[in-house]
Amino acid sequence: MSERTKLSEEQRLDWLRLIRSDNIGPRTFHDLVKYYGGVRAALAALPGLARRGGSARPLRIFSREQAEAELKVARAAGVEFFTLGEPEYPSRLQMIDDPPPVIAVRGKPEALARPLVAIVGSRNASAAGVKFAERMAGDLGDAGFVVVSGLARGIDAAAHRASLATGTIAVLAGGHDRIYPAEHISLLEKLLVEGAAVSEMPFAWEPRAHDFPRRNRIISGLSVGVIVVEAARRSGSLITARLAGEQGREVFAVPGSPLDPRNEGTNGLLKQGAIPVTEAADVIAAIEPILGRSPNLPSAQEPQQEMPGLIGSPEPEPGADERVRITTLLGPTPVSIDDLVRLSRASPTSVRTVLLELDIAGRLERHGAGLVSLL
Amino acid sequence: MSERTKLSEEQRLDWLRLIRSDNIGPRTFHDLVKYYGGVRAALAALPGLARRGGSARPLRIFSREQAEAELKVARAAGVEFFTLGEPEYPSRLQMIDDPPPVIAVRGKPEALARPLVAIVGSRNASAAGVKFAERMAGDLGDAGFVVVSGLARGIDAAAHRASLATGTIAVLAGGHDRIYPAEHISLLEKLLVEGAAVSEMPFAWEPRAHDFPRRNRIISGLSVGVIVVEAARRSGSLITARLAGEQGREVFAVPGSPLDPRNEGTNGLLKQGAIPVTEAADVIAAIEPILGRSPNLPSAQEPQQEMPGLIGSPEPEPGADERVRITTLLGPTPVSIDDLVRLSRASPTSVRTVLLELDIAGRLERHGAGLVSLL
Repeated sequence: MSERTKLSEEQRLDWLRLIRSDNIGPRTFHDLVKYYGGVRAALAALPGLARRGGSARPLRIFSREQAEAELKVARAAGVEFFTLGEPEYPSRLQMIDDPPPVIAVRGKPEALARPLVAIVGSRNASAAGVKFAERMAGDLGDAGFVVVSGLARGIDAAAHRASLATGTIAVLAGGHDRIYPAEHISLLEKLLVEGAAVSEMPFAWEPRAHDFPRRNRIISGLSVGVIVVEAARRSGSLITARLAGEQGREVFAVPGSPLDPRNEGTNGLLKQGAIPVTEAADVIAAIEPILGRSPNLPSAQEPQQEMPGLIGSPEPEPGADERVRITTLLGPTPVSIDDLVRLSRASPTSVRTVLLELDIAGRLERHGAGLVSLL
Repeated sequence: MSERTKLSEEQRLDWLRLIRSDNIGPRTFHDLVKYYGGVRAALAALPGLARRGGSARPLRIFSREQAEAELKVARAAGVEFFTLGEPEYPSRLQMIDDPPPVIAVRGKPEALARPLVAIVGSRNASAAGVKFAERMAGDLGDAGFVVVSGLARGIDAAAHRASLATGTIAVLAGGHDRIYPAEHISLLEKLLVEGAAVSEMPFAWEPRAHDFPRRNRIISGLSVGVIVVEAARRSGSLITARLAGEQGREVFAVPGSPLDPRNEGTNGLLKQGAIPVTEAADVIAAIEPILGRSPNLPSAQEPQQEMPGLIGSPEPEPGADERVRITTLLGPTPVSIDDLVRLSRASPTSVRTVLLELDIAGRLERHGAGLVSLL
């Protein structure tokens, strides 16, 4: 396990600047840091990368002043910032493929260090579904678990409400000052007493539709397992369940009558091998052996000092010929990175560099399974 | 696969006499036939076996006249008798551990040769459960399956009713003239048009509580799989599901809300690995690959001719000493047959013979897993 120490304020500002800059998502953030050996070096390399990637307009890099302002405003609202690798950063979230480099936490950050289980489900839940979610959340809370959910109407709200006293975590799709739905602002304030609200988005970020699936990876990523209570076909809860499966977390589904379409998703999960649960004991029996093991953290995180060249020294840049050969192969149809290497006869490093440049220039779309296309 | 031919009327009478004699259940029937090499030889050996086993009163052997009378009365009511190994005897039922040596079938015996799926469940079913059972039975019927059930109130009756036109089988716990519950006599008459009623019990046998679990092994034994729709804890449907599992048949369970105790059994089955089903397509997908394979029948059945000594010639009988040593070891506490052999220092054959004698004398209880005790 890596040693986990606090960043200096300077370092924290750098992290925030990099993740808040244009076209930098968690994946690109980690690629850049790996490539340049540190956050500061990555920040310095951004303009050149964007230019070589063919960015239409200069890349907007989040300034030091903007970062300071965000920290100041957020802290005034009781929000703390934790970066990947810091002691307060939740250890399971650290293990997912694309962990948020920085999370903003309001409430009791200690709650994040306790064993977390997510409960999610339909917004238009049935009375029975709501009752079940309350019972499950209450029993898990009594058993010492903290309940994670998404503050949505229906199942999410029921799960939070029933675990206010024992601790519950709301993961937000927007900034801490943009609570959705607004009717749950008072629920959120209540849950901050023993629990916390978590967001990877900037202050003042209004959540849009595609921020919710992105947020869902944090709900599952924080948790040992995800319990789905009522979910129609193609619902957001099924996305959370899929992400949980991809992250190697337990997926639990509550059986329901096939005659109610709100159970189509949950029963479908059961058919795919989710663990059926009817009471908290089922969940506890499945996750207790997992909690016994310490999470298998990656062995090295961001170094505490900027040490360019130590982790991954930037290779000589691709030549103009290579760059042309690689970009010519790209188009709107997704191709695999392996094929790009083979067909371009460029080195894998050159291909990765060109892709990183295009990514930062906002011209690349990354699909699953190593597939990329031009935007 | 064994060649399957019809018995002569003489042979059929012998089979009926042996299985209808006192203390002869299916297991003892098969043990005897194996030991004596044929049904007639087993019949002849019965009085001696019972005497040596210490029967309190002379063993009542079903007489030739009684057998003729049963055949006559039953046939007048449209009942046909099929013995294990005959072409009409259902091939899957033949594969279970303790198949009924003789089954009495009313209606269309041809229905038994089609692919059979059982639907069972609560007597006090919910409206949703009844509706689901009807839909499932109707859809399976339309897909060419014959629905097997137990003629009980609730789920069973719903399954039969919805598959009257496509064929449905009722397995009875009593004789063909002792329909339980009586309110389902007209349902039974209707299902005989395209389907059949099956019983292993004698004509005029009034079903008692413990005949129902025994009957359940035939419901599952006939079927490729058993679908359980609503079942409370400790319900008869769970017995059928357990037997189905032991017989290597597919066990399907319909998910239901954990808040309704009628789903406790079915959700419990899901936790134990039953296949969740919400529509007929789920069942068909699971059993189609099985139907593709021909059932793996035992290679030899009862020989068509009586051939004592060919299959298993009776060994020299145990000596008086051995007999005493073996019976002394037995008491009301179940012991394993292996332990009996070891502790008595008798041959396994002697132990088996003494146990068979005690069994026929009505003094032995056989538990699962090779355990026996004295009654």
